[in-house]
Amino acid sequence: MSKFNWNYPTTMWVGENRIKDISLACKTLTIKKPLLVTDSDLVNSEIVKKTIENLDMTTEVYSNVKGNPTGTNVEEGVNFFKKKNCDGVIAFGGGSALDVGKAVAFMTGQTLPIWNFEDVGDNWKKANPDKIAPIIAVPTTAGTGSETGRASVILNEKTGVKNIIFHPKFLPSIVILDPLLTVELPPKITAATGMDALAHNLEAYCSPSYHPMADGIALEGMRLIKNWLLEAVKNGSNVEARMNMLTAASMGSTAFQKGLGAIHSLSHPINGLNNVHHGLSNAIFMPYVLTFNKDVIENKIIKVCEYLEMEDKSFDGFLNWILDLRKKLNIPHKLSEVIKEENFELDRLSKMALNDPSTGGNPKKLTENDMKILYQHSMSGELFK
Amino acid sequence: MSKFNWNYPTTMWVGENRIKDISLACKTLTIKKPLLVTDSDLVNSEIVKKTIENLDMTTEVYSNVKGNPTGTNVEEGVNFFKKKNCDGVIAFGGGSALDVGKAVAFMTGQTLPIWNFEDVGDNWKKANPDKIAPIIAVPTTAGTGSETGRASVILNEKTGVKNIIFHPKFLPSIVILDPLLTVELPPKITAATGMDALAHNLEAYCSPSYHPMADGIALEGMRLIKNWLLEAVKNGSNVEARMNMLTAASMGSTAFQKGLGAIHSLSHPINGLNNVHHGLSNAIFMPYVLTFNKDVIENKIIKVCEYLEMEDKSFDGFLNWILDLRKKLNIPHKLSEVIKEENFELDRLSKMALNDPSTGGNPKKLTENDMKILYQHSMSGELFK
Repeated sequence: MSKFNWNYPTTMWVGENRIKDISLACKTLTIKKPLLVTDSDLVNSEIVKKTIENLDMTTEVYSNVKGNPTGTNVEEGVNFFKKKNCDGVIAFGGGSALDVGKAVAFMTGQTLPIWNFEDVGDNWKKANPDKIAPIIAVPTTAGTGSETGRASVILNEKTGVKNIIFHPKFLPSIVILDPLLTVELPPKITAATGMDALAHNLEAYCSPSYHPMADGIALEGMRLIKNWLLEAVKNGSNVEARMNMLTAASMGSTAFQKGLGAIHSLSHPINGLNNVHHGLSNAIFMPYVLTFNKDVIENKIIKVCEYLEMEDKSFDGFLNWILDLRKKLNIPHKLSEVIKEENFELDRLSKMALNDPSTGGNPKKLTENDMKILYQHSMSGELFK
Repeated sequence: MSKFNWNYPTTMWVGENRIKDISLACKTLTIKKPLLVTDSDLVNSEIVKKTIENLDMTTEVYSNVKGNPTGTNVEEGVNFFKKKNCDGVIAFGGGSALDVGKAVAFMTGQTLPIWNFEDVGDNWKKANPDKIAPIIAVPTTAGTGSETGRASVILNEKTGVKNIIFHPKFLPSIVILDPLLTVELPPKITAATGMDALAHNLEAYCSPSYHPMADGIALEGMRLIKNWLLEAVKNGSNVEARMNMLTAASMGSTAFQKGLGAIHSLSHPINGLNNVHHGLSNAIFMPYVLTFNKDVIENKIIKVCEYLEMEDKSFDGFLNWILDLRKKLNIPHKLSEVIKEENFELDRLSKMALNDPSTGGNPKKLTENDMKILYQHSMSGELFK
């Protein structure tokens, strides 16, 4: 496989073994002492060790990061960054590590608390943009696409809300997409993160705003996922499949600047309150939201079927492909298979879902009652007719 | 029509009347005294007058720019910029004005001659990147896509060669896509520039490099052109058609970072030596290059047909669509209809075409003899079988 250098939405160094260019990435951004932010599961892995070996400079490591990362994780990371006199961040890992890494780099230069930068209105303009540390992002899962995103999702432990913290400079200056870093990813995580990437591309494509570049990227992203996700799950060492899934994930996040939708609105509260994996909950909600939106997205979905060479080029053909894909990936059909009824706070969840920033991108306008109905169907397993 | 703000490949302010934000664009880039670079035909137009009225700051104008602009145009512009103590460029117009505007902003900070920055190897690293003046680009044609490109095509009068001058910072910091600026564009220019946008998207899509984001953008770009080019030509005041064509043009140039091909290799020498409009020559060469490349691009073209909802979803169906579109746009089929035989320097042109930087992106490897044969077929009007 050759090397590829892409320039949008940011500088992306793509290809097998590109992690070897990590020192060059630091030098390009004049980072002399990077803080590598990763998660507690990954910190002792071979890929982290090799990355640090490739770095010909003193490197500090912060790894107190778990799934659905919190404001405390970010605060700790910022303190560590300052204590160690670091001057840049290598965000390395899955969505959580990337989100924390980006937020740490951002918060090293701010005086206001992180929650002041929630993605509402012009909040981001309150930030001091000159003091944000440079960010290199190295994803080791193919799903979140945080590496090409301009936000981090951080859980506010006090409110139980996953807040989207936004600033244009959250976008990493250099991204390394190296498929060899993902070949050891277990099938279960490959599946859930892959479905996350699909949710991003799908919701972006269906979102009604005018952004043809995003449409094209989302469409091609879905094609890669259709062709390669099952293979990446079945045969994790297939580098071509891993490369295409990494690319599709970066594309999903690039595309969803156009907008997301109810899949994400429903997911975020469940991730925050019930600690369900984000990709998994996206995969669960997908067919319920699709059938709920059917009458306004049907024509778009038929176009997707044509480009993806579905056998049955109809809305139902697409829906059946999703249902079948979930089955093959061992993803539960009902939300009730991952959340106990007694932990399911329907009213609270529905309010949170409605207020989620993704709600505005849904093809159909949504009410709190719609959210309730969507949650109820997802629990019972009944799709909309 | 609403306003849209896009963030890749650069900051893009999109929508009807967005030119009203031109002062905001200057302030965002801390430009206090812009040099508006436009061409000699446009300088006295209503749209230039209105743009200057919208600028609440002293604005200088440089307009000694014609089609296929030269190194002298750039030099003059740089001298004028310095003399007037400008601190930023508004590149306003068609491809030539945009290319000169970008090159002026770049060259104000350089000591080496412009030809040292030809897009070969690492030439661009010779530039001083800190002294490049900020660039705002406002296209008034929908074709070149120079507003989202990282290069300018400048004619070296001594050699007769159109050189691609490249630097990452040629990419404008803010682009304004305002369809109202294009409604007065005559049908003939609308047609030729629209075919240029098609050539960009088509060659990028067919180019064999790995860049799925570019593929998706190119595909969607072609869809917009299929749906809107004829309408924009027939009914110039259709703002929706104008908006979609502007977007498709920006997408073409974004996509062709992936690569171009022989259409452009053959065009550049003809533009430089015979002063033929670039979009027109691209439109002429298109079917010859398509049929020449047929055996390696056929499957890709069929996918395009599917997404573009062609009636005949085959290579020939696509080819016939191009031939028919050219006919409806009054674009000549043969190169001999725009160049006299006695001015046609086959050997010189073929050498230049082979050495054109676009050649490497062609789906088939090309020799000098291939270029000759391609030119000969284009003169005689005979497509490849």
